[in-house]
Amino acid sequence: MALLVVGSMAFDKIETPFGISEKIVGGSATYVAYAASNFVKPIQQISIVGNDFPQEELQSLQSRGVQLDGVEVVKDKPSFFWSGRYHLDMNTRDTLVTDLNVLADFNPIVPESFQGTEFLMLGNLVPALQKSVIQQLRTRPKLIVMDTMNFWMESALADLHDVLTMVDVLLVNDSEARQLTDEFSLVKAARKILTMGPKYLIIKKGEHGALLFHGKEVFFAPALPLEDVYDPTGAGDTFAGGFIGHLAKTKDISFGNMKTAIIVGSAMASFCVEQFGVQRLKEITKQDIDERMEAFVQLVNFDIALV
Amino acid sequence: MALLVVGSMAFDKIETPFGISEKIVGGSATYVAYAASNFVKPIQQISIVGNDFPQEELQSLQSRGVQLDGVEVVKDKPSFFWSGRYHLDMNTRDTLVTDLNVLADFNPIVPESFQGTEFLMLGNLVPALQKSVIQQLRTRPKLIVMDTMNFWMESALADLHDVLTMVDVLLVNDSEARQLTDEFSLVKAARKILTMGPKYLIIKKGEHGALLFHGKEVFFAPALPLEDVYDPTGAGDTFAGGFIGHLAKTKDISFGNMKTAIIVGSAMASFCVEQFGVQRLKEITKQDIDERMEAFVQLVNFDIALV
Repeated sequence: MALLVVGSMAFDKIETPFGISEKIVGGSATYVAYAASNFVKPIQQISIVGNDFPQEELQSLQSRGVQLDGVEVVKDKPSFFWSGRYHLDMNTRDTLVTDLNVLADFNPIVPESFQGTEFLMLGNLVPALQKSVIQQLRTRPKLIVMDTMNFWMESALADLHDVLTMVDVLLVNDSEARQLTDEFSLVKAARKILTMGPKYLIIKKGEHGALLFHGKEVFFAPALPLEDVYDPTGAGDTFAGGFIGHLAKTKDISFGNMKTAIIVGSAMASFCVEQFGVQRLKEITKQDIDERMEAFVQLVNFDIALV
Repeated sequence: MALLVVGSMAFDKIETPFGISEKIVGGSATYVAYAASNFVKPIQQISIVGNDFPQEELQSLQSRGVQLDGVEVVKDKPSFFWSGRYHLDMNTRDTLVTDLNVLADFNPIVPESFQGTEFLMLGNLVPALQKSVIQQLRTRPKLIVMDTMNFWMESALADLHDVLTMVDVLLVNDSEARQLTDEFSLVKAARKILTMGPKYLIIKKGEHGALLFHGKEVFFAPALPLEDVYDPTGAGDTFAGGFIGHLAKTKDISFGNMKTAIIVGSAMASFCVEQFGVQRLKEITKQDIDERMEAFVQLVNFDIALV
């Protein structure tokens, strides 16, 4: 059951109250691939990198079942670079540097070998490019999950609404949900967004967990209470990778299984933030994931028989 | 199984983005009593009111099984009055008026008829008065739950630490837990607080739910996603009333039952915020509560069999 992932592969330099990272590998598609590769193979990657992107990183992804036929390597330009500084609460950050570099020329082309994929993860990207990928697929995937951000709500709202009509699941954070709908109440915001196209909406609240909305139903997944969050960078993409990775593995896109998939996503995100970049995601085993899933069961499991 | 409640009975005037209330009945002990009276009788109330406190409100409480022998009525002074304005997020508020009035003279006396109570809820109050109540009880209650606030951490920290050594469960919000421990991580803050006396710690996070810590165990209860929060005033006290009310009803103070009790508290709080003051708490039925408990089950219930 192939999973097609579209997004950035890049370099990040991160400052947190706990320290400052080197220039390390990041990018939405990178995090999605590392998280999802624990559940599904092959992963078909569509992205763009520069002449500076490390070969060993590409090989590390390939060894996890990530096919790179769709990753364009630009010989005479550097990779996308982002640098940011997180505040103490780790939910807010200041962007210090954004060098688009090769990303400015990104025009995703779906390789012939990627046709027929059944699960599509559209990482945060120019809405018009997300639409282009959907249109290049001759067979519509069984499930299309889309991430986006406030920047596109300000600079490409019409295109964003256009893509929204084509996807099944939208992933946004709480402030983005409010901005997209002009509603402060997340329940009201969710109802509005579910009229824009997606049948499922996931609102990410960082350390405060995530909400899944579908019709009149709602499901809440907490974030695992952690002693320290070292680096939230990529946690949302890692969440998305765990979510769609579980769905692709189980081939079950029912609301019930999406609940489980959100817990899987939350578990993967809880690993991601334990170290800078993708480091922790490279280390974890199936047993680590199983143990953390059990921790989530214990975290929310209660008995109402006594009430 | 009697429940002894100590705290304020007062008047509030509340401004929210949704409107401004009249001068309405409030106070920590009032909210606790209304919430707990759905689960346990009698409730033994210790508080102080002025000559302006409405008789019909006292009768309403009595009709719900609340014994008022411990409520001192001061003939020549008005009741405690608080006025505040909530910000849009409903988690932050500005205090506009605080008239202590009779509360300045409050010296809680435990009536002989209240001796032998098995559950004690110490509402937010001067720590020295909370201690006085514990010391007046000839038989130590089976469970002592204590609420407090940042004000006492700044003005009576030594007394607060003194009382902490005498209680079983401490209720604070996230910012208070951080202030009490100088730890930003709630997990680290919890570990520190559990060395100060309480064997159980509940950290309330408002719309983001609540955490229960005990030894190395942790449980998370979400807040019910609501279309609108009209008035958060008393939500924490209502949560406390539902929590200890369920424990007193079931006579089971195990960690497992405390998980259920926190969901009961969250359910009661979700009613409280739907209208100004205690209005909604007066209306709800056993069936309303059962249906909301089921909503919490649906909100967090997932299946990991597929993972």
